[in-house]
Amino acid sequence: MRKHIFNAGPCKLSDPLLKNSAEAVLELNGIGQSLIEISHRSKEFQAVMDETVELMKEVLSIPEGYSVLFLGGGASLQFAMIPYNFMKSKALYVNTGTWSTKAIKEAKLFGEVEVVSSEDKNFTYYPKGFNIPDDVDYVHITTNNTIAGTEIFEDLDVKAPLIADMSSDFLSRPVNVAKYDLIYGGAQKNLGPAGVTFVIIKNELLDKVAERPVPTMLKYSTHVDKGSMFNTPPVFNIFAVRETLKWVKSMGGVEAMEKLAKDRADLLYGAIDESKMFTCPVAKEDRSRMNIVFIFEEQYKGKEADFIAFAAERNCVGIKGHRSVGGFRASTYNASTMEDVQALVQAMKDFEAQNA
Amino acid sequence: MRKHIFNAGPCKLSDPLLKNSAEAVLELNGIGQSLIEISHRSKEFQAVMDETVELMKEVLSIPEGYSVLFLGGGASLQFAMIPYNFMKSKALYVNTGTWSTKAIKEAKLFGEVEVVSSEDKNFTYYPKGFNIPDDVDYVHITTNNTIAGTEIFEDLDVKAPLIADMSSDFLSRPVNVAKYDLIYGGAQKNLGPAGVTFVIIKNELLDKVAERPVPTMLKYSTHVDKGSMFNTPPVFNIFAVRETLKWVKSMGGVEAMEKLAKDRADLLYGAIDESKMFTCPVAKEDRSRMNIVFIFEEQYKGKEADFIAFAAERNCVGIKGHRSVGGFRASTYNASTMEDVQALVQAMKDFEAQNA
Repeated sequence: MRKHIFNAGPCKLSDPLLKNSAEAVLELNGIGQSLIEISHRSKEFQAVMDETVELMKEVLSIPEGYSVLFLGGGASLQFAMIPYNFMKSKALYVNTGTWSTKAIKEAKLFGEVEVVSSEDKNFTYYPKGFNIPDDVDYVHITTNNTIAGTEIFEDLDVKAPLIADMSSDFLSRPVNVAKYDLIYGGAQKNLGPAGVTFVIIKNELLDKVAERPVPTMLKYSTHVDKGSMFNTPPVFNIFAVRETLKWVKSMGGVEAMEKLAKDRADLLYGAIDESKMFTCPVAKEDRSRMNIVFIFEEQYKGKEADFIAFAAERNCVGIKGHRSVGGFRASTYNASTMEDVQALVQAMKDFEAQNA
Repeated sequence: MRKHIFNAGPCKLSDPLLKNSAEAVLELNGIGQSLIEISHRSKEFQAVMDETVELMKEVLSIPEGYSVLFLGGGASLQFAMIPYNFMKSKALYVNTGTWSTKAIKEAKLFGEVEVVSSEDKNFTYYPKGFNIPDDVDYVHITTNNTIAGTEIFEDLDVKAPLIADMSSDFLSRPVNVAKYDLIYGGAQKNLGPAGVTFVIIKNELLDKVAERPVPTMLKYSTHVDKGSMFNTPPVFNIFAVRETLKWVKSMGGVEAMEKLAKDRADLLYGAIDESKMFTCPVAKEDRSRMNIVFIFEEQYKGKEADFIAFAAERNCVGIKGHRSVGGFRASTYNASTMEDVQALVQAMKDFEAQNA
């Protein structure tokens, strides 16, 4: 039977994605070849790529003047590509946890990094109202923090180019893309299987590249010029992304995704806040809708493995907290359902009734 | 009906790979989750990764002291990573076509490149007996050239570290891995679907890194230290690679693959050499077993589209030659069968009978 999947990523995906991707691996559109056997330069795959790009533009209401790319290497490679291409002397990074910290490490190889951080409170809140100097080459933020469980819900007004790692809340709410110069992320949360990275880049940003030699594969201009086909792209993974985008559209778009995300998060945070056994360490206004971090109250600590086993008996899997935070984390990405969350909430209530 | 697939890559894959990968996308091992929904850090995926690495070592008889990696980004990213990590001052590159040329371009960003080339005859032969200076940091070769249709069948004796792009003939013959310091390639020929790159690296090579700051994702040591799990790897793609390796092993290993490759190539080159209509521009001793390039004799030129359509009616697809060479190219990778090649040979004979 299908589990209630709360994995932090890779994570639960939509049923049509699984069904249609599996079918295409056996045979694509009745052409006597598998999706993963055709040339990436065939008309069949070009159609998949074109439709995926068009659906991204439609679903996210991406304005004119932006390019949508699908690349290999993961968001971790973007951590290096961004400063490699755009750091002339100084950039501002907002450090909201593990992933921002990794991005900052790479940026420091290429220039000076100014940092605004929430590390003083172990990343349990999202920094606000900070000053942004006019002379930075760009500002880098991480909109959702899978480990700390925080999220920013507004699109910042920033004069410098704004670059956002949206790996883990992409497509979970409408975004005013015009406020960003580059949005990127690994697909393996809301967008599809691991192995492909999306980049939405304002074409004008390509006029602001730093003057240093950059390897061809690490230049954004390479991939913009070649429509993500400079080299062989991850064909299966892009097909699956298309299936996600079709599904999001059929469900009512990012507005519908936002409502569902709010409903799931409200239900789960509500249960945590009502409980005498569980608590959430994250500042209320900054709580992520995607990664719901919760821990035991002091007197119950040590029983984490018991609750994880208890939940697993109720088919709820993937709730072990990240080792750096401990406790639990339920990741409720777009494909999670209210039924998934209800099952977990019931498990929490039953466990509390038996053990409090 | 299933086509006779001669695509240059992505290309024909084994039936068990297609069947088992499609099943795993629906549900992995009856665990109530898809392969592409589980965490890459789950015991289920760790088992897939471990088995894939072990099968690589077994199938290729990789000696102790080597690490096997599965990375994103494609072989094109390796073109940059190799000099980024290992070019101190000078390297020797053997230029045997389009892909070597691309590798050389990236290497020139990091140091001096000495080149041995077969460009004088439009890459229709493989250079031999060339002098290798003692003072180069490494020697880089491309063992098979998908576009030019040449291949080197021996493992060179080289004093400097030997680095080989084996993207397109990997697993098609036994290789004396001990003679190489780094072997790499995109998976999308003999190994699996596009979206994952294999690297076999001698651990001692990591002691010879150049002294320059390298982004974390571009350091081989990062991926060796983390067992290809520094960041989320392409889960589906690695699973499919495992299926290929299981299939190669079940078929009798790389020795059996070599025999099948020779049989297919002999049949097709034999038909070309017998024909008065078709001819092969490649030097006999250097003809690739993987990518069989052939063209029309002068008086038939211009009829290429007719033959492609004629072959397609007989279910033979993917034989259009690369635009830089023209004519035809039948890629006969490991999963190609004698039946596939027989169908193409028959189409060639019938076309010649009707049109010569």
